[in-house]
This record gives sequence, C-alpha cells and structure tokens, in this order.
Amino acid sequence: MKKIINFIGFGLLFFALISGETRAQSIQKVEPVNWWTGMKNPKLQLLVYGKDISAFEVSANYPGVKIEGVQKVESPNYLFINLTIAPETRAGKFMLEFRKTVQVKNGKKKAVDQIVKISQPYELKVRDKKPQEITSKDLIYQILPDRFANGDPSNDKFPDMADPLADRSNPFLRHGGDLQGIIQHLDYVQELGATALWLNPVLENNQFQTNEGGSMRSSYHGYHFTDLYNVDKRLGGNDTYKKLIDAAHEKGIKIIQDAIYNHIASNHWMMKDLPMKSWINQWDTYTNTTYRDEPLIDILHGSASDKKIMESGWFVPALPDLNNKNELVGNYLIQHALWTVEFFGIDGWRIDTYMYNDLEFMNRCNEALLQEYPDMFITGENSVSNIVSQAYLSRNNFNVPFKSNLPSANDFVLSNAISDALNNEFGWNKGFNRIYSTLASDMIYQDANRNMIFLDNHDIDRFYSVIKEDLSKFKMGLGFLLTTRGVPQIYYGTEILTKNFKDPSDAEVRKDFPGGWAGDKENKFLAAGRNAKENEAFDFVKTLANFRKGSSAITTGKLMQFTPESGIYVYFRYDNNQTIMVILNQNKDEKVVESSRFSERTTGFTRARNVITKTDLTDLKTIRVAGMSVTVLELQK
Amino acid sequence: MKKIINFIGFGLLFFALISGETRAQSIQKVEPVNWWTGMKNPKLQLLVYGKDISAFEVSANYPGVKIEGVQKVESPNYLFINLTIAPETRAGKFMLEFRKTVQVKNGKKKAVDQIVKISQPYELKVRDKKPQEITSKDLIYQILPDRFANGDPSNDKFPDMADPLADRSNPFLRHGGDLQGIIQHLDYVQELGATALWLNPVLENNQFQTNEGGSMRSSYHGYHFTDLYNVDKRLGGNDTYKKLIDAAHEKGIKIIQDAIYNHIASNHWMMKDLPMKSWINQWDTYTNTTYRDEPLIDILHGSASDKKIMESGWFVPALPDLNNKNELVGNYLIQHALWTVEFFGIDGWRIDTYMYNDLEFMNRCNEALLQEYPDMFITGENSVSNIVSQAYLSRNNFNVPFKSNLPSANDFVLSNAISDALNNEFGWNKGFNRIYSTLASDMIYQDANRNMIFLDNHDIDRFYSVIKEDLSKFKMGLGFLLTTRGVPQIYYGTEILTKNFKDPSDAEVRKDFPGGWAGDKENKFLAAGRNAKENEAFDFVKTLANFRKGSSAITTGKLMQFTPESGIYVYFRYDNNQTIMVILNQNKDEKVVESSRFSERTTGFTRARNVITKTDLTDLKTIRVAGMSVTVLELQK
Repeated sequence: MKKIINFIGFGLLFFALISGETRAQSIQKVEPVNWWTGMKNPKLQLLVYGKDISAFEVSANYPGVKIEGVQKVESPNYLFINLTIAPETRAGKFMLEFRKTVQVKNGKKKAVDQIVKISQPYELKVRDKKPQEITSKDLIYQILPDRFANGDPSNDKFPDMADPLADRSNPFLRHGGDLQGIIQHLDYVQELGATALWLNPVLENNQFQTNEGGSMRSSYHGYHFTDLYNVDKRLGGNDTYKKLIDAAHEKGIKIIQDAIYNHIASNHWMMKDLPMKSWINQWDTYTNTTYRDEPLIDILHGSASDKKIMESGWFVPALPDLNNKNELVGNYLIQHALWTVEFFGIDGWRIDTYMYNDLEFMNRCNEALLQEYPDMFITGENSVSNIVSQAYLSRNNFNVPFKSNLPSANDFVLSNAISDALNNEFGWNKGFNRIYSTLASDMIYQDANRNMIFLDNHDIDRFYSVIKEDLSKFKMGLGFLLTTRGVPQIYYGTEILTKNFKDPSDAEVRKDFPGGWAGDKENKFLAAGRNAKENEAFDFVKTLANFRKGSSAITTGKLMQFTPESGIYVYFRYDNNQTIMVILNQNKDEKVVESSRFSERTTGFTRARNVITKTDLTDLKTIRVAGMSVTVLELQK
Repeated sequence: MKKIINFIGFGLLFFALISGETRAQSIQKVEPVNWWTGMKNPKLQLLVYGKDISAFEVSANYPGVKIEGVQKVESPNYLFINLTIAPETRAGKFMLEFRKTVQVKNGKKKAVDQIVKISQPYELKVRDKKPQEITSKDLIYQILPDRFANGDPSNDKFPDMADPLADRSNPFLRHGGDLQGIIQHLDYVQELGATALWLNPVLENNQFQTNEGGSMRSSYHGYHFTDLYNVDKRLGGNDTYKKLIDAAHEKGIKIIQDAIYNHIASNHWMMKDLPMKSWINQWDTYTNTTYRDEPLIDILHGSASDKKIMESGWFVPALPDLNNKNELVGNYLIQHALWTVEFFGIDGWRIDTYMYNDLEFMNRCNEALLQEYPDMFITGENSVSNIVSQAYLSRNNFNVPFKSNLPSANDFVLSNAISDALNNEFGWNKGFNRIYSTLASDMIYQDANRNMIFLDNHDIDRFYSVIKEDLSKFKMGLGFLLTTRGVPQIYYGTEILTKNFKDPSDAEVRKDFPGGWAGDKENKFLAAGRNAKENEAFDFVKTLANFRKGSSAITTGKLMQFTPESGIYVYFRYDNNQTIMVILNQNKDEKVVESSRFSERTTGFTRARNVITKTDLTDLKTIRVAGMSVTVLELQK
C-alpha cells in the first residue's frame, strides 16, 4: 500500500508526520524566487534548498515549462533544476512537484513503501519593467543609504538582526538612514540637477564585520550580503525599495544598483550549508587577494599562481570569495541580476570589486544582462592606477585574446589625474597636463564617453579635503567633471563641501548628511541651513548641472582639447547646434586668453554667454579669466 | 647650323664657354650618388642640382634603365628624374644625357640655335651588403663619436669647416674623437660583451649651432646634417666609416646608424636654394614644436592646429623642419636610407626625433627599408612618459585607424620606471612595482622584446648620478637591464660609473672617455687605468653581458615575473633548455626568499649556479639574498 503525503511549501518550514515518525521535510528556499515569461533566454536554473531535497524527483505540469534535468551537488540539501520556458508560455502560478519513496516502519509491522510529495508553488510573472538607458546625458548622485537620511525611525531597531541597533555616536555602527529618507529627499537630488542615483548596496547585511584590530564594525555600508533576494529591512525592505524606484522614476531619476559578484558575507545563509565546497574559493590556509591588477593584464609574463591569488584570494576574511568560475555559482548570480532588474525595475548596475571576479564569468554576466537590456548601463569598479589596466578590464580597442565586454569603467585613472592636476602647479607632466594627457589616450577604450567619472566616492578621500578646502579648486574640479566626456558622478555631500580623509577609517568619508535625521541641528538640504560658502558650492553645481541637462554639446557632442599652455587648459564641447568653450586657469593671476589659437572651434562665433555668471561676453577675441578659475562659455554668433 | 657642346660632369663644377659668352653650366649634385641593381623596388628618383638644370631634357641609353619622366619644381636649378631599373639590369656606368637648345648671338651675326649637352655619369653597382639582424640576442653600446677616442689627430683641423678646430677645453666644441678612435677600441667593446654599436650621427655637420643664450656651440653631437651623402671628415669621412664597419663586422659587432628625417641643419647645402618652398615646413613667424606627443595620439579629441605645430613646428631655430609629407622630400630621405645600407653595409637604424616626422611618411620609410631588408632593426626615439603614446608610435596591438610599423620603440617608459624604482622605497606604486607594472602592460606592443631598453643615453642624466652614485643600485639597474625582455643598450662610459646631470647642458653627459686621447692622464679602457670601484662596475657588466651572450633563456626565452612582495622582485627567463632566476632585493637587509612560491618555474630544479659570483647554490628551497642586491641564478637539476 502506498500512502501519499503532500506538502505545500510557501518558502516556510513545513513538517510532515509520517506513520508516527517525526520527519522534517521542507523546502526553505527556491531562488530565483519567481521568474518571468518572455525573457530572451528561455533557460532558468532554480536553486532549491531543503533538507535532503536532492533525494526527490521533480516534475511540473504547466504549458510551456519543461524540466530539462536536475543537478545534484555535494550537499544533499540542494537541488538545481534546469527549466526551459517556451516563448509562448503564459504568466501564472504552477506547482513544482517533488516526490520520493521512503520505507516506513509502523510499529512492529513490515516496512512499507510510502511516497512523500512536496508541492512547491512557483510563479512566472508578466514583464512590466523597462530599464532606462544611463548615458553621458545623466548626472549620477551617489548615496550611502545608511548615512543620508532617516526617513523611517521605525526600522532602526531589529532585535533579530546581528547588528540590531542604530547608533549615530559610533561611526562603525548603523545610523538609521534608509530608503524612505532618500524618497523624502528626491526633490533635493532633482534640484541639484542629478538624473540618476547610485546607491551603495541595499541587500540584506545581517552581519557584523570584524576589522583587523578586532573591534566590531557593522556592515552599515551594505557590502556584506547575507541574502540576495531581500533588501535589508533596516533600509525598508523590498517594498520601500520598489517605492523609491517608482518615486524616482516619476521625477525622471534613474536607479543604479550596486552589485557584488565576487563574494558573499560569512553569515550568508548558504555558508552554513554550502551546495559544494567549490561554491567558494577554498584555500588550505586563509589567503587574501593581493589587490593587484597586474597578474590579470600581464598575459605575456604573468604567473598563474599570482593570478589565482588575485582572483581567488579573499577580499577580507569576513567575505567568502565566490567561485564564479563554477557554472552553478555563475548562473545563480546572473539570474539574481536579471531578477533584480525585472522585480524592482532598476536601470543600471555598478559592479563592485569587478576585477576580483573571474573575468570570463563577468563577461558571461554582462552578456546575459545585455541580451535582455541591450543599452543597459553597467559600470565596473576597478580601482587601478594604470590606464592600460583600466581599459583592459572594460570594452577596449586592444587586439588581445581576452575581450572584456564591460560597457563602462569607473574612471579611477581620470579621477587621480584631476586631483593631481589641481594639487600641483602646472608643468610638463603636472597640473592640467595630467588631465590632458589622460584624455589623449581615450582611443584605447571602445567608448570613453561611457566611463563613469568622479572626484570622490565612499572608498576614497573627500574631494574637498583632497584639494585642501579650496573653493576655487572645488569649482575647477566640478566644472571640469560636468563638462568633459563621460558620465559624471557626485558623491553625496560633495556639493556642500563635505570634508575628510579616509584615514583612520573609511567611516570618515561616510558621515551623515546634516539634516537627514529628525532633530539635526543643521539641515543642509535647505539653502537656509547651509552657510554662504556651502551655498556658493551648491549653487555652482546646481547651475552647471541644470545647464548641462539641456546642453546637447556637453551631453552628446564631441570634445576637442587643446594642448595646455602656461597653466591654461582650453577645451570645447560641440555639435551642430551648440559650442561650449571651457577655460581652466591654473595661474594665481588673471590671464587673457587669445581665442585666435582656437579658431578651429571659435570661427563663426563673435559673442558668448557665461553659463555660470549668466553674463554676456561681447567680444570673443580676448577673454579675461580670473586666477584659479573655470569659465564655461556658450558661444554665440 | 647647330653647334653641339658636351660637358661631362663628375659632381664638380664645370664651365662652358659658348660663342664668347661665359656661361656657367654644371651639375653640382646627383643624389643618390649611385644606385644598385637588383633592388626589390625598381624605382629610383634622382635629384639633380645644377644651374638652370630644369630647362634640360634628359635621356639615358642603358639596357634596363628607363626614364619614366621628370619633375620640375620651383627652383630652376633642380630636376627630379624618375627612373625604373628592370630586374635583369646589369651593373655598370652609364651617362645621363642632358640637352637643351639655346639661342646664341655671335657678335653682330644673327642668333643661331645651339644645343648644349651635359653628360653626367651614373653608376649602378652590384649589391654586396647584407645587414645583420639585431635582436634581443644583442647588447648595443652607444658611442658619441666626437667624445670617445681620437684615433686620428690629423682630422682634427679643417680650416674650411664652420667649426674648424677641436678644442677639448670647451664642452661645446669638437673634441677630436673620430671613427678611427672607435676602430682602435673595438676590442674594448668586445671585452665588455657588446655586440652592436649605435653611433650618434656621423654625417657631415658643417655648422655652428647657436644656443638660446647666443653663445656659439658646435654640432659636435652630429645632429646638424649639412650633407647626407658624406660622413663628416672630422670623423674620418666615408672611407673610415666603411673601415670601421668592416672591422666591427669582423669582430661580430653590428652597426646601428642614427637617422634624422625630421630636419636638416640651416647650413645644409640645399638651404641656400630650396627645390621648392614646401621642401621645408614654413611658418609666417618662427614656430617651435611643442614637443608634446598628445596631439598625435589624441585621435578623438585633438586639434588639427596642435598636431600641425607638433609635427611641423621646428625642433630648434637652427634646424629647418623637413616637410616629409612632400613626396619628393620623402623619396629623397628614403633613398638616402637605402643608399646608406647598401653603400656602407650598416645593420640597423636608430631614428632620431621619430614622432616629429609625419607618421605616414615614417611608415613609408620603414616600409621601404623592410621591403629590402625584412628583418632590419629600426628603433625610434620617442621621448614620452605615457606608455600608450610609446606603443601607439610603434607596432602595437591597438585597433586604431593609424597603424605604426616602427618595429622597435626606444623604451623611455621603462627607462623612467627603472630610475624611479631604484630611487624610491618599495610601495604600492613605487620601487620595483613601477617596473613590474610597466612590464605587465607589454601586451599593448606587437613585440615588446624588440624595444631598445636603456638606463641612459646622450639626452638624459647619467644613470650613475641618477641613482646617487650607489654601486649597489648600479648593479641592480644593470642586472635588470641585461636580464629582462628587450634589446639592451648601454651608453658609453656607464660601465665605468661615468657621472653627471644634463643640467646646465647636455654636454655634461657627453664627456670624453678617459684614455681616448693621447696624453690622457687616465686610461679607463684598461683595468689598470680604472680604480677598484670602476673595475667592480666594469667587471659586473662584462661578466653578465658575456654570460648573456650564451644564454638562450635570456636572449630568446620567455619572461615570467611575479608580483613583488616586501621589496623583493623575482622573475625568470626560461626556455626548454635553460631557466634563469633573477632576484632583486630592495631592502637594506639580507632577506630569505622561499622558492616554493615560484614553483611554476622552479619545479624540477634543486641547485643553482650564481652567474655573477660563479658560486654554487646547493639548496634552492630558501635563497639568501643580500640587502640592495641583484642575484642571477642559472637553475640546475
């Protein structure tokens, strides 16, 4: 006699009482947690996690859905199910039927075969999201969610979390900033002129991070994922994230999510029971990455062991290094990326620790995203100082065996050049010549105009401190950033002259935005809360960023730069409709610029409008520029 | 009645007395001064210079030689004759017959037509030279001929020359060094282990050079050409040059000539009567080049005017800038290069001021040489600090519209990296990491192993001064130079610790080699004339250079470099027959290197021979290396 027992799982734990024996039988996770019909790639690989699930057979009865096979791994508690979803498949819910035969002894009777069944519902939704392209037309504003604004104090405390309390007195603990806080300040972002937000990671970080000194630090920064399918509830969870994205989109602001493919946190749920040892890059003794890019690009002289340590060494001890060479790991991460786009409706990706991943995997991952969303903005963090490395790791014009398909580089090389340029007097390889020379090599990229360019971010010194709190240099830096090629990015607070060096810790450059918390003494979201200097800085950025929005020359035109001379760097942004002339003067004194040298671009123009001061220049022949200044002119006939 | 008057020119001035009138009629120059049969390119364009020569018709009657046409230019005193020389043409002399009709009045008689003829002999020789390939198997020794050794005091004084006197007391005048002096010291070059000589230019420099301060300086350095077809007679003229080349070849030493295509000297014979204005890059007012490489490589953002100034601006006022975009100029220069190889039998070229030439012309010039001599070593001087520029200007792996065909870059970028590495303590982007990172980008060259690598030359500070006269750093620098990839080059005197910075003038780094002049107090060509430290340096170079000659791993093997750690940089040269391990220790203290980290290259080896100390290492597991040292080991099984 066969006794059939059915369980229906809803992602919760179910127990089955079989013939008097207590036997836990459950499915704890199915990931991706849902999928969509009409994806260009018909394949889907489900990770199913549940006690002894690998002993089950699985079936599904839904038109268009076919189980091609399953993959068992070292842990009996995982089963990978390979599905295809035919193009004509209709959205809807169906059951994944798991079934196994067990021998059950009932008291003194003979053992009998019983069939255990689990019915796991799964949903295929209708695709209703369409990511918007992020290009050089945009201005990206970067926010570290825990440090921007606390819009919902009710989510500050969760006793069930590893770091349960928000505590603003400790720079290493959570401060309570959240997605609701961002929603409340979208007007501010819009006023500034930004058109996209890059948020530091929002996924669950149910983990303390131990720093080298042994003191406990929380993962307030978001880079310690413990669950890929849930936005951290301290930030507001999945629902608030959706709400933020919808609200941002309504204001014409796009959303860039921060992805981590290289590692998960040591408290990620999977770490307690890995599908297989090779899910993680394993070492006999703990091995840290060297953080060096050279073994990756040194295809002629590099050693295999250095490359392995670079790629498979761990970023820090608290972050188990995902072996994304493993196809199952790769699929799991790629599907999560696709799921995120479809589920939340984000527009683009910033990829953390890009070069620490297997680069072939990264190509596969980017390709999967670009197959579904051909124009998607995907920008990778490669904190390198060598321009050849930076280009090698993104789409480039090198004839080399490995071709990266990363569309956009985080332009660390240009960022370093800008800081160097402003902090050193003009010279052969110094001052503006650092910027000039860097841009002159742009032909090694497939499209340098896709590079995300920046002055600072959460990992480096605050720009205003780097330039020694000099407002003139601030305007020169921001003026350059907002008028050169590339997709500019501003780190939250930079626009109000936020200071600090990352020594002694990263937390120094991740301070709370004043006014983001109820009861803050100052509210720098408002002009009245900012001092005169801060308003001068804010207004400069606001004026230029908002002008930039409507400037075809800056956002989609060409760049022509002239060899800097005597500390003066002149370049043009231009197209058929508009010509913008930018003059950066690195001298302490006022200078007169003769425009005849630039006749390639100035011919036909006689007058100009100063975009910042909104004054008119009635004679273009000689242009007076103040010492240590940036001048942005819209040329007129 | 027609009267026919014949002149036979031999490159000298002839006068013709016609009907009582004195009428100078002559051919002063035919260049190339001769040619060869059996060239792969059948074309030859003769430049003929003589008063009113353009009024003549020209013919030749020699089997295989065909005049395809002539080109007249602005000056009536030039005629360009386009010839083809059929493959089967036999070597020999023939006459170029020039002919024109003139109306001659004889006293009161009626004018009559007379025909004026000039017969100009021209020779086609049999090719008997075969340049030898110069590769990473070689070690190049660079000599500035005026400053090395005075082998023939009889050629020190020429009253007919612009700078007639040798005067060793003045650093800016000629010192009397000559090619005979080099011949006399070929044994020294050979003892050191060099296999090729690069001589600073040897062609006639009948010119003073005025420096900016107004004081007169001679062109002792050779870079002010006044005649391309004559070696300067102060150096010994064409005959001694041939003698040197033959003597060098007999000792297995190859010869690299220094070419200048970018300019001639203001006293070049042609400057008094240019074929056409556009022979030279003309400017309304004197325009200097900016010396900047960026306008050349900045194909996306560069301005046409910056590029024009870079290419067509003059290097210095005394050096008229050749317009080698002009096809006639190009032909003239290319044919001179071919003529030089065939006439003297040189083996390779070093091209001065490479990037200041029209780059399309340079490609055409290199192509013409490579067509005749496919393996020829051609190395270009591009004194740039940006590796992208350096690669762009030579054969590279960039997908860009312009493809340079320059086989070898003078590796200024690596040279800077070596000096930086030795002068700065080890750090993330400092010390040996500068070298490591530079070599890691080698894949952007088509073949970095063809790069000419060096520590110093006639244009930069002396290496021993750069490294603050530190003998340990000297050995580390030379040890690296002689064991890494590329074609190493040593500047004369570097091997005996010659010092100096080029401030206040280049002449500081171009001092006489002690012992090169009769009566010199010291003779550092001999061990007895060198002090202990100088002998230690010389012997170090000699030992390693001579070992290198027989080392297949170093000269033709692969390079594998490991990420430097704690100030120690380890790399290997290896092939199937030999493995060389190089350990550079930048720490002040002795260190122990565990070879297990390098098992990719050390597996199978148990012992090693120290190439410098000639001692044996019986255990490879741990290798002790002294502070601030280079260790070169030949691994043994």
